[in-house]
Amino acid sequence: MLDQVINIAAVTVLGVLEQAYFSLQVIYARRKYSVSPPSTTGPPEFERVFRAQVNCSEYFPIFICTLWVTGVFFSQAAASVCGLLYLYGRLMYFRGYSESAHSRLAPLYFSAKVLWLLIGLSCLGVLNSMCQLYLGLDVLQQLSSFLLQN
Amino acid sequence: MLDQVINIAAVTVLGVLEQAYFSLQVIYARRKYSVSPPSTTGPPEFERVFRAQVNCSEYFPIFICTLWVTGVFFSQAAASVCGLLYLYGRLMYFRGYSESAHSRLAPLYFSAKVLWLLIGLSCLGVLNSMCQLYLGLDVLQQLSSFLLQN
Amino acid sequence: MLDQVINIAAVTVLGVLEQAYFSLQVIYARRKYSVSPPSTTGPPEFERVFRAQVNCSEYFPIFICTLWVTGVFFSQAAASVCGLLYLYGRLMYFRGYSESAHSRLAPLYFSAKVLWLLIGLSCLGVLNSMCQLYLGLDVLQQLSSFLLQN
Repeated sequence: MLDQVINIAAVTVLGVLEQAYFSLQVIYARRKYSVSPPSTTGPPEFERVFRAQVNCSEYFPIFICTLWVTGVFFSQAAASVCGLLYLYGRLMYFRGYSESAHSRLAPLYFSAKVLWLLIGLSCLGVLNSMCQLYLGLDVLQQLSSFLLQN
Repeated sequence: MLDQVINIAAVTVLGVLEQAYFSLQVIYARRKYSVSPPSTTGPPEFERVFRAQVNCSEYFPIFICTLWVTGVFFSQAAASVCGLLYLYGRLMYFRGYSESAHSRLAPLYFSAKVLWLLIGLSCLGVLNSMCQLYLGLDVLQQLSSFLLQN
Repeated sequence: MLDQVINIAAVTVLGVLEQAYFSLQVIYARRKYSVSPPSTTGPPEFERVFRAQVNCSEYFPIFICTLWVTGVFFSQAAASVCGLLYLYGRLMYFRGYSESAHSRLAPLYFSAKVLWLLIGLSCLGVLNSMCQLYLGLDVLQQLSSFLLQN
């Protein structure tokens, strides 16, 4: 049974490592720009690093939820690939935002698209499982066999 | 086995969609009141929308944890109903807070009560499972048969 | 099957209760120092309590992810013990930070070390499961039998 979630567990651990890396960057930025806690305001260079980390933290639970729901109810492979792309996009976003507010935009749009894909796939997976359970109808199965015939 | 969590997975996806909706509202408010990232301060109208989203994000992981622990260890039906009520309360809270700081209070108290209920049920479920495992005692089972007899 | 996660579910519920306690402390601090929402700035006494809660909330999803991945893929006992230590460290951190920015440091370093341990164990557990699945190699099993022989 654990085989069916091992890859999404690996992506989860990678995501945790990425968040840890972002947190360390904020600590370095606090030292570099002399912004002592509890203050969270300072030069724009610091505020961009800080906001980049806060934004990634904010989306982390949403990412984990959709990763696991997609992985369990739709497909582990699809979830893992989307998960890796999302984490790559977030890394680019963090690096971009650290340079300038504008450089964050392209990777932000990319990671947003990947997240929407994950949200879409998790909706599909859950709806299909509900149809199977309550209506006895395997929509995804029928759709794929329909597509293979045409 | 997935049948036992499909409804809470569906509530999870609904919760993710709600968080995505809140995030979009902050983006619209940033444009409307000309508050460019990384700044998070501006007119009270913007700050209320921003704080509403931050507050909902902050409670989201707690909500998801109690939803799943209640759903797995107490009852999937109870968890799903509480989950839907909580998400409804959070939507009312977000809309209320966007209008005025005072309008957030009634739905905030409502969603807090539902969250406490979920916390209580998850405690009950976990304690009952621990009693079953370590003491061989099914407290909830005995309680319900006792209540049915009286 | 639920026996294999009951203890980490109990630690999860404890963690949720701790977060609820921190949130209540912020509400009391808002009243005490007259800082009405949506404002999050005020006297340093208030800002320290506020930042302590925000920091704990930020790390909560990371903690939960590593707790469960460690518990499922490495060892439930190790995950539960680390989880309890982490929650204890966070309580000390919150109390320390409420007193002064300096008093937060010792418990912060302690809880960071425990979190790194959890991250390390979750990496180990996932890598071992991947070796087992894809290479047919149980590294942890062989390591422990090697250590027992020497």
